[in-house]
Amino acid sequence: MKPRNLINITDFTPKDIEAILSLAEKIIKSPEDFSHSCDGKILGTLFFEPSTRTRLSFESAMNRLGGSVIGISESGSSSTTKGESLGDTIHTVSHYTDIIAMRHPLEGSATLASQHAEVPLINAGDGGHQHPTQTLTDLLTIHQTKHDLDNHVIGLCGDLKFGRTVHSLITAMSAYPNNRFILISPEELQVPDYVKHFLDSKNIAYEEVERIEEVIDRLDILYMTRVQRERFFNEADYVRLKDSYILDNEKLKNAKEDLAILHPLPRVNEIQPEVDDDPRAVYFDQVGYGVIVRMSLILSLLGMGEL
Amino acid sequence: MKPRNLINITDFTPKDIEAILSLAEKIIKSPEDFSHSCDGKILGTLFFEPSTRTRLSFESAMNRLGGSVIGISESGSSSTTKGESLGDTIHTVSHYTDIIAMRHPLEGSATLASQHAEVPLINAGDGGHQHPTQTLTDLLTIHQTKHDLDNHVIGLCGDLKFGRTVHSLITAMSAYPNNRFILISPEELQVPDYVKHFLDSKNIAYEEVERIEEVIDRLDILYMTRVQRERFFNEADYVRLKDSYILDNEKLKNAKEDLAILHPLPRVNEIQPEVDDDPRAVYFDQVGYGVIVRMSLILSLLGMGEL
Amino acid sequence: MKPRNLINITDFTPKDIEAILSLAEKIIKSPEDFSHSCDGKILGTLFFEPSTRTRLSFESAMNRLGGSVIGISESGSSSTTKGESLGDTIHTVSHYTDIIAMRHPLEGSATLASQHAEVPLINAGDGGHQHPTQTLTDLLTIHQTKHDLDNHVIGLCGDLKFGRTVHSLITAMSAYPNNRFILISPEELQVPDYVKHFLDSKNIAYEEVERIEEVIDRLDILYMTRVQRERFFNEADYVRLKDSYILDNEKLKNAKEDLAILHPLPRVNEIQPEVDDDPRAVYFDQVGYGVIVRMSLILSLLGMGEL
Repeated sequence: MKPRNLINITDFTPKDIEAILSLAEKIIKSPEDFSHSCDGKILGTLFFEPSTRTRLSFESAMNRLGGSVIGISESGSSSTTKGESLGDTIHTVSHYTDIIAMRHPLEGSATLASQHAEVPLINAGDGGHQHPTQTLTDLLTIHQTKHDLDNHVIGLCGDLKFGRTVHSLITAMSAYPNNRFILISPEELQVPDYVKHFLDSKNIAYEEVERIEEVIDRLDILYMTRVQRERFFNEADYVRLKDSYILDNEKLKNAKEDLAILHPLPRVNEIQPEVDDDPRAVYFDQVGYGVIVRMSLILSLLGMGEL
Repeated sequence: MKPRNLINITDFTPKDIEAILSLAEKIIKSPEDFSHSCDGKILGTLFFEPSTRTRLSFESAMNRLGGSVIGISESGSSSTTKGESLGDTIHTVSHYTDIIAMRHPLEGSATLASQHAEVPLINAGDGGHQHPTQTLTDLLTIHQTKHDLDNHVIGLCGDLKFGRTVHSLITAMSAYPNNRFILISPEELQVPDYVKHFLDSKNIAYEEVERIEEVIDRLDILYMTRVQRERFFNEADYVRLKDSYILDNEKLKNAKEDLAILHPLPRVNEIQPEVDDDPRAVYFDQVGYGVIVRMSLILSLLGMGEL
Repeated sequence: MKPRNLINITDFTPKDIEAILSLAEKIIKSPEDFSHSCDGKILGTLFFEPSTRTRLSFESAMNRLGGSVIGISESGSSSTTKGESLGDTIHTVSHYTDIIAMRHPLEGSATLASQHAEVPLINAGDGGHQHPTQTLTDLLTIHQTKHDLDNHVIGLCGDLKFGRTVHSLITAMSAYPNNRFILISPEELQVPDYVKHFLDSKNIAYEEVERIEEVIDRLDILYMTRVQRERFFNEADYVRLKDSYILDNEKLKNAKEDLAILHPLPRVNEIQPEVDDDPRAVYFDQVGYGVIVRMSLILSLLGMGEL
């Protein structure tokens, strides 16, 4: 039997996700019940592309479960520089570890890697493609903050064209009844057509607007994203657009009292620091939920969850 | 309540320092009593500037307490390269860890970081400014070697201008009665005026001399420092001065039998290897005390000490 | 008493090796009996030259024993860049750890380091010289696969001139009765004269051939090696020779049914991936045995084995 992996958030059925979130809630309630669950287990963190935040979140999760972590955090120190194939590297690391979290700059690399892994493999980001543990983090944050995953008006703001977390969140939240999406972006950075086709095919309501102010009063959830310099084709476009979608206290005046403001972080200036003290800002709580949901995922893939 | 931090050695009162040293002595006597004190706890080591020695000392300390360690050891792999503020990075890492040790090239960065940390933060060096755990290490070494912290003639030798550990040690030892300082350095590398003003204001005796040989017979403690190439403005000055203050067996002939020779390490050639076998050389014992005092500090800041 | 080290495979007598392999077999049979053997112990991994595979293998071994790991994985982040001697670095790290595994690009560095270490030191590779834990890995793999270490026809194929693992394996297997060696390589990459003199002096049978096909049907063990680009003096030679010794299913048609194919990995293309599914391919099992034998070695050097 091949081990279970998480490559793409769509690998998980809504029932799978429910199991992950349900176990996460148990961990939140009694973390001490899980502090030795992974005693003697080893997580391998293979980061062929740097991502401090994601790597530390996985490491924290495994340590909180009593397990240990080994890994690489830069491609330069890997055997792949000696001409080894990614498959061989993964096959080898399978013998050192009980579960692997891999980040790699090439799209599709996680799928390839999972074919050579002899332990469960988690995709911690492959190129612009997929980053499913961020989506699980977002779902847990929404669930903990709003108490359910349905009947929400969800605003997504910023770079909706290249932001993989946005696409995954739309897909994931579309599985729950009566969610509606408001897509807030400059024309140049609208969601790709395949996302719109997906929403149309499911008969899910969405609208596209250009300014936060137009819609802020209707939102239950506002998911801000960073305008990533590295996604732009030229510097001039980046400079022109990067400050267009900045959230501040002024823009929040007309927002609902129970709005939840999320952000995958890191941010540059798309949310002003003054917003941090607003009780509706949950993006730093989101960081903590990211650790919890990875604990739940590790347990589940190792067969100690409810998956 | 904000967590307790250690940014500057002056954050600690003499009573605080006594509590740290007292717990350190208990650890030395029965290390096994503390080998599970930090089970399930995570230390974050954020080294935005490389410092193998300090980082490994903290990691060893946390592992000896049963805790685990996650971190970064180079600025290049951090989210700060994506434009994130230091405050956001620290706020985020607070959610991954129970206590943070940070080293950063900019003066004042540790104070800034502590304002965003939600867990205790230890300054593991910020620019040329402060390195308080080195001072705690020095104090524990003196206390263990000389059995008390007062009534000592303390020679400080080498680069006294740029050496932050020297300034901190003078400040710290000035709090105990009847210590006197002999400052041994070339004129160009004398202690800064503010240190002399501090000593004058406290009526503490000190003298400045140019040669070790003049004073070696009067010293109870000799604190050697490295002539750091990176502190010099030009290479010619470095070459001219670097060998001026080299300790060897010849110079030690007139020293007291119970002299204690300390050095913060690493050394280049300012102490000849032949001195290593002299029982008065305690600079490698000092390395061991550095681990112990960090164990004591971690426990204390986590509320498990006597602070 | 100086601690016991492993610098050169010849430091170990056949009786020592038997003790290491015997403990390794106990670990294979009941890993859970050893999962807390190193609780509270720290392994220092000092990799002054990158080697992901070897480093991760050591880290996995220590974690599987319940111990923790601290270390450096690149020379750039070490104090040696500040002019510190290797001896001082090792002396210092001795105070942070209970056992050290060191890899260094200079031949002889491990011997030097062991003179300054105050804890057991394992040579994890020093230049082109020695890599004794690879040899222990090879011996355990042969012992587990063939059930004994004597009476084998052992083919060694590829770069036999620069490949240190080959020289060590020949030395080690020569200690057991009735082993014979078939050395398969291009003329330019034959084993050095000192190896032939060693075999002659021990009256051990060997022959040198140029093509795998000539001898494949006679082999009990086939040890493939990588043609390392970095060992060649010029690119033209590398390109001409690198594909000469590629193992594939075609070449294996005449091989014995109980042939064991080993490779120290990483491979480039000297073994075609189609061979991986052949039950005679044990090179990935070899990776797992590498972890086990390092567990045995760590326990033994810490005085918890049968050494």
